[in-house]
Formats: sequence, structure tokens, C-alpha cells
Amino acid sequence: MADATKAQDAVITPREKDYSQWYLDVVRAGELMDYAPVRGCMVIRPNGYGIWEAIRDDLDRRFRETGHENLYFPLLIPRSFLAKEAEHVEGFAKECAIVTHYRLRTVDRDGVRTVEPDPASRLEEEYVIRPTSETVIWHMYGQWIDSWRDLPLLYNQWANVVRWEMRTRPFLRTAEFLWQEGHTAHATREEALEEARRILDIYAEFAEEMLAMPVVKGVKTESERFPGAEDTYAIEAMMQNGWALQAGTSHFLGQNFARAFDVTFQNKEGERDYVWATSWGVSTRLIGGLVMAHSDDDGLVLPPKLAPIAVALVPIFKKAHEREAVLEVGAKLEAELKAAGIATVFDTTEHLRPGAKFYRWERKGVPLRLELGPRDIKAEHVLARKRTGGDRLTIPFDQLASTVPKILEEVQTEIHERAKRFRAEHTVTLESGGSIAEAIEPGDGALRFVRAHWCGSAVCEAKVKDETKATIRCLEFDAPRSKGSCLVCGKATDRLALFARAY
Amino acid sequence: MADATKAQDAVITPREKDYSQWYLDVVRAGELMDYAPVRGCMVIRPNGYGIWEAIRDDLDRRFRETGHENLYFPLLIPRSFLAKEAEHVEGFAKECAIVTHYRLRTVDRDGVRTVEPDPASRLEEEYVIRPTSETVIWHMYGQWIDSWRDLPLLYNQWANVVRWEMRTRPFLRTAEFLWQEGHTAHATREEALEEARRILDIYAEFAEEMLAMPVVKGVKTESERFPGAEDTYAIEAMMQNGWALQAGTSHFLGQNFARAFDVTFQNKEGERDYVWATSWGVSTRLIGGLVMAHSDDDGLVLPPKLAPIAVALVPIFKKAHEREAVLEVGAKLEAELKAAGIATVFDTTEHLRPGAKFYRWERKGVPLRLELGPRDIKAEHVLARKRTGGDRLTIPFDQLASTVPKILEEVQTEIHERAKRFRAEHTVTLESGGSIAEAIEPGDGALRFVRAHWCGSAVCEAKVKDETKATIRCLEFDAPRSKGSCLVCGKATDRLALFARAY
Repeated sequence: MADATKAQDAVITPREKDYSQWYLDVVRAGELMDYAPVRGCMVIRPNGYGIWEAIRDDLDRRFRETGHENLYFPLLIPRSFLAKEAEHVEGFAKECAIVTHYRLRTVDRDGVRTVEPDPASRLEEEYVIRPTSETVIWHMYGQWIDSWRDLPLLYNQWANVVRWEMRTRPFLRTAEFLWQEGHTAHATREEALEEARRILDIYAEFAEEMLAMPVVKGVKTESERFPGAEDTYAIEAMMQNGWALQAGTSHFLGQNFARAFDVTFQNKEGERDYVWATSWGVSTRLIGGLVMAHSDDDGLVLPPKLAPIAVALVPIFKKAHEREAVLEVGAKLEAELKAAGIATVFDTTEHLRPGAKFYRWERKGVPLRLELGPRDIKAEHVLARKRTGGDRLTIPFDQLASTVPKILEEVQTEIHERAKRFRAEHTVTLESGGSIAEAIEPGDGALRFVRAHWCGSAVCEAKVKDETKATIRCLEFDAPRSKGSCLVCGKATDRLALFARAY
Repeated sequence: MADATKAQDAVITPREKDYSQWYLDVVRAGELMDYAPVRGCMVIRPNGYGIWEAIRDDLDRRFRETGHENLYFPLLIPRSFLAKEAEHVEGFAKECAIVTHYRLRTVDRDGVRTVEPDPASRLEEEYVIRPTSETVIWHMYGQWIDSWRDLPLLYNQWANVVRWEMRTRPFLRTAEFLWQEGHTAHATREEALEEARRILDIYAEFAEEMLAMPVVKGVKTESERFPGAEDTYAIEAMMQNGWALQAGTSHFLGQNFARAFDVTFQNKEGERDYVWATSWGVSTRLIGGLVMAHSDDDGLVLPPKLAPIAVALVPIFKKAHEREAVLEVGAKLEAELKAAGIATVFDTTEHLRPGAKFYRWERKGVPLRLELGPRDIKAEHVLARKRTGGDRLTIPFDQLASTVPKILEEVQTEIHERAKRFRAEHTVTLESGGSIAEAIEPGDGALRFVRAHWCGSAVCEAKVKDETKATIRCLEFDAPRSKGSCLVCGKATDRLALFARAY
């Protein structure tokens, strides 16, 4: 396997010095992505795409186990569809890629042959590249749903979407991104609400178990709601600079899209009613979250459960006569690990020294490095080093396939515990009369998640945002309740909101 | 699981009466797809998307085993990129969806609020939705490749593409389709040629083993080559009307794209040379091929290895007191089958009679139907019926999990053998002086694949096409060689070409 080595050789800026630059350096040095020649778009390289595949496979299993099926809706949406739901179009019109022509024609420009849209191919009604698919899906649901017997529809699609964002950042905010979008249709309000909550629970479990990323579950305020939703539930994670990342959302859409697309059904009582809906999604943004939650100044740190390569085995030899034995034993160990279902690379690259290989796999976030030299072969063991640090271990050959999974499990837990500790240390509750600005940014480098009393008014919410750039991430489902007064207007309330700066 | 039942109730036109209409009826009645409100596009429903997922998983494994990795390139391609390779742009310019604006604005049209592209958001350089990704990929390869050490690059992506086809047909030719596209870069011509052939072999093995579809392997003539390729290899399958379907292509691109994008590398001798390339793909078109190769007048017939549902278990009871026992035993059997890794549906739908359920699963192509009634419970067996026909079998409860896989294996083989027989019966060699038109269409309903001597000239090839609408599908790799004379010009040649009408 050949590999481009240029990005890898670039220096990684330390987090302390410039967190934003550190992030950009890490995703490039870890070979997660490269910049594409398309505004705001990226190429997702194998080390990044492998993470996405692992995310997809695991979530997909969870969706199936809860009765969902996959299908595929078209990429293009007729322009007029978007206008049917008032809030929805308001939310997405400003960032739509619009297809207006369907043919290029060749032209000569000062002797240079090039192509341009053929004016004769102008479309009467333009298409929008889906920024999300509610509109085209509810158009189809109108044809598929007629009776309570057709319900529920529990559908999901894995797809690409385009939102013409002005300020982009790899994985976190890109013009095109990959995601899954679930769209369900139900006979009752209760059933739809239950579905939206069930999916949020799936997202939260997935984030904790697989991403090793602790998340807060809660409901968004009106100002942060999905355009067209009655309620948006979200999971929020903390990055290593104390900023929040919205990692997944699940929307209770009420009957809004059913009304906009006139989708009714005959209920068991024989009456016609509008259908109840949910939609929910997570995207390649999770990869950005993963990086910012766990990685360090040496590069990526990937949770073993999602790492495309779990183990990198590096052969070490100085003399030519040692080479053969090391490569032979190494190949045997590689085969054993693979047979045990562990994604292993035996790095036999000719032109790199062991130190350069260590460096490379470290930057790529491989959770466990194994070393094998002539002395190790004599002792019948390998040396092992976890990406998360600690002493070098020795693992006897005959215990390799049983020990490695345990070490990987350890690394997964370590990463998760470390992130939980970090969040606990960076979450505070604002005392009555305290300054929210100071609570959020105490000045020691990282920001804070701040629980504070909030009266429920959008005006007070906006005031905090103006002054601190922090937003209400959510009203936590299991927030402690306590009597207090709104941090802005002083009105008595027992509601605590979670404030933070967010990506 | 609820399901839309409208398409299912429609009549299926018999093949003999109207093969084209039969195909359209079958894909709808089998719930593979539905028409989307987007010109030439479709919604791929769970029964169709499940087939695509099975195709993807199996091919993906084969690609990985031969050293390929997945990644993801952007959907949009700068307009000017397409113009860089002369033949390539010629081939794709006429069917490109072009993005010209990135914002919608709200307008009032006679009191109706709607949206239109905001003229202020006109892009300076337009983007084309990828019809295939060679251009953007070779732009990136230019940044990743510098030395022979960076080679080979063996990359593949699973993606959607758009080609603005004027005449569309579900799965076979749609404006948007799903596919995989492999793009490899090599240091030598030989290595690239070997790769292109290796992939064709993978496609052929996959088609035979999984799709149960016999295919011919060969090389395309110049007129049928991929725009920008030096050689196109293809697998060609026969449909039940005797038409050919190009089911997969693998292209040897020579140094064409490396030249167009100026991608050179330093070889082991220290000299710079252009990089050698291949590209290859199969698409959701395979699903159309699958349908046309195997299905019958009762609906879909799916090969068990790719069927999203392998077994449909239908409970049968008349009296209320029988219900409980049948549902209880049925649920147990379902769990057993699922535990054995067999995709099983226990159809407990309340509002359908057993006959309606049989009919439905038959149309959906489920390879094996099991029936369970009170008498079967007493006898401790189920009744089984293969989708391919034959007598009803009885399978004792305690042999279910071991017997069902064997029966499914049988069905897979039956379908494959039937298709091989059909092709053998519909392939002829044209005798010297015989009429190609008559050989291709003998008038008994189905067309023929015709092997005929061809001198190699594009003029002769075009003449046959004009007269018969048949094209040279390929020059078979393992075609018999025999002395003869060109079917058009009479020139002596020992080359046999394979002629057929094609989708």
C-alpha cells in the first residue's frame, strides 16, 4: 500500500498555541482528508472514510434493530418543493446549490477551447441539490400513505447533501457532507414523539460506546430548532477547548410537512388526519468531533472501536540477515491478528526507518503499535505501546490474539474516561448574580459548559449570545432543577439551561 | 413493518405480450422503486436498496481482498476540469447537470410566494455534478503522487452520479444512479493493464456467483470505448428477450488523464514519466439486469445470495383459538432462522389473508416461502415452496435451520443454470454468407447473440448497426478463432465479434 507522505511531514501546531490550527494540522497529518478544488469541499481519504464506514455500520445495525429500513431518494429536489414549508425554505434557501442547465457546449475563448452551460439547455424549473430531504420524501409519502395500515414508515437513507456554507472547516462544516437522514411517518403524535426520543437515545449510546464521547441529551430552544420542526432534540459533546459540538439531532416535526404536502391517512376510526413525522441525522461532522475530543499534539487519537487500523506492527532489523526472519514471523503474527478480526497493518514499507513508521502511525491515530525485532523473536514476544501512552508492554506470541483485544478495550475506556473527566472539570453551574461571561471563559485556556437559570425568553437568550457568543446548547432532559432567577432578567424560574460556545 | 400496497395490486403484463411493459410492471410490483418527481430519477425502495447493499458488501470485500481502499471525492467538479481531456468532455458534455447559483430568493408571483435562483449568487465558474470522477480524481492524484514510492494508488468510491439521459428506464438508465468507481494509478503500463483485467475478472466472478448471471468477458471496439480510455473491457449479460446488457466495465486509461492533468512521477531510474491509470465501475443498473435475467410473469425472482429477504414465513389459521399457537411457534421458527443468519420475515400482517401474502412475497421475489398452520404444528414441520417452482416440500422443525440454507443454495444454482441454458440456446455463430439480421432476430420472440467474422473496420461495424441496430458487444477474450471472411466486406479474417442488440 503506497501512501502520499507530504501532509504527514508537516508540523502539528500545539493545541495550546492555536487550537484551530492544531485541528487543521491534525486532520491533514492524520490523512483524514485533503482540500478539494471545489469551494468548501474536501476529499475524505481512506483513514477518514474508514471511520465513516465504521460509524455507518454500527449505527445501521442499531437502526435495523429498532425496525428501520434503508432506501434512497433522489439527489435533486424541484425548486418549488422547497417553498412549500415556510420555515423550512427560510432556513435553507440561502445555502442551496442550484442546477439550472443540463448540457455543456464547447466554445473557443481566445483560441483556448473550453466549455460553458449551453443556453438552450436552461431548465424550466430548476433543481436544488438536497440540503436535506424532507420535501421530496414527504411528496413520496403522500403517494405511499393512505390508511393507518400503511403506518408507521420507518425509513433511513445514507447520502450526501450540499449546503453552501460561507465559512467552512474540514468535517465540521463543509459544503458537501455525508450523513444519514431518517424520516418516519406515524399515526399519532405520541408515537412520533417516542420515535424522536428513541433515536436520540440511540445517538447518545452510540456516541458514548463507539466515539468514546460523553454527550448531554436535551431539547433545543426555539431559536436553535430545525427549520420546520416543532421540537429538536440534540446530543452535545465537549471539545478539548471547552467548546460544544452538536453531534446529532432528532426532530419531532409534528404535522408540518404532512400539511405542506397534504399527506393524510384514514385512522382506525375512519377519519382522515394529517400524518405525524420525525426526521433525524448524524453526519461526517462526527469525525471532526472525534478528532477534537480525543487527539493530542502528536496527532490523531482514535477510539479502537472505530479506528480503520487498530494495530500497526512494525518490523525492526538492522542487518540484512535479520530481515528474513523478522518479515516471516511478522507475517505470521499479522495473519493471526487478522484471523481474530483485528484490523492490522504489517508495515513492511522499504524506504522508511522504524522511527518514521512509529511517527506515521501515531499521527494516523492507530490505537496500538507493536514492535518486532530479532531479540523479540528470540524471546517469543512483541513489544506493545498504546497510542494513549504508558509503559511499553511485552506480549508473548501465544497470547497475542487474546491480549490485543483486551488492550484495545482498555484504550477505548481510557479515552472515554479522560473525556468524561475533562467535561466534568469544565462544567459549572452559575451562582445567582455571577457573570456568565466569566463563567464561560475563566481565562485559563479552555471554555466551560455553564448551567444557568433562564426564564425561557428568547430576548434573554439573545442577550447572552450578544455578550458572550455562547448559546443555549439545550435544556437537558435530566438537568437538576433548583429555584433561582434568570441570569438576564432576574425573573424567578427553576429551569436551568446549558450555555456554551459552539461550533 | 407497514408497506405501501398500491403498486403491488397492479397487474403484471406477461413477457410474451410486451417485454418492456413487463419489466416496468415487475420493478414496481416488486417494490424495487417508484418514480420520483425529478426528471429521469427514481426512489429506490427498501426491496431494491437492500439488493444494492448486498451487491456493495460483496464487491467491497472482493476489492479489499485485492488491496483496494475506499475514499470519497466531491460531488461537484469545476466546469473547466471536464474540458481537459478532449475525448472525455466530448463524451459527457451533453448530459451534465450544471450548478450555476448557490442561493434562492423568495419572490411573489401573482400573489403566490415562491423561490428562484438569486442572480447575485451566480457562480463565476460553474460546477458540474460528477457524471464520473476521473477529472477531479486526477487533479488530486497530481498532489499525491511524486515518486514511484507513492504508487500504486488503489482507490475506490461508492457514490451517486448524474448523467442527464434523455430516454430513461428504471435502473437501466436513470439520470441519477448509484455506483462504485475505482481509480488506480500505476508506475507501468503492464501493471495498469493487469489491474484492469483483474477487476474485470472480479466483476465476472461476482456476476456468476452472486447475480447468477452468466457473462461474456471481452474488449470493446473503438466506437464503444469509454471516452478517454485506451481500452475498455466489459462483461455482457443476456436478458430474457435475447438483448445484451453491459453489466460492468473496466478501463485501461493509458497515460491520458495523467497527461491532461500533468501527473508525473519519478521512476526507480530517477526519470520522470506520466502515471498509468485504470478506472472501473458497476452501478444500480445491475439490479435492472438481475430483474430482466431471472424474473417471470408472476414478478421478481431474486437470487438468494442477494435477496434482501430470503425466507417469508406465512402463518395460517382460520379460527381465533388457533391464532395464538401459530403465532407463538412461528415466532420461534423465525428466531431460529434469523439466528442461523437467514434474512427472514414472519408475515403477521393482520389485514391480509394468506393468499394475499403469498402473492405479495412472490412478487417481491422472495426465494423461499414457508407456511405454518395448526396441522403443521401437530406434524412438527413447515411446508416450503421455492419461488422457482416445483413441489411443495415439508421440512421438520428440527431440521429447519440446516435445510433452508441448502434449499436456498439450490435455488441459486437453478437460476444460474437456467440463465446459462437460455444463453446457450440463444447464441449462434453466423455461417459465411448468412444474414446477420436474420441470425439476430429469427422471429421466434427472443433475439440472439451472434458470433460473426469481422474485419476490424469501424465502417463495417457501423453498417451492421444501421441495418440491424445490433452492435459489437465485445471481442471475447476466449472467443474461438476460425478462418472466415468479414460479414460485411468479405475480407479474410479469423476474428469473431459478438453482435447483439443492447440496452
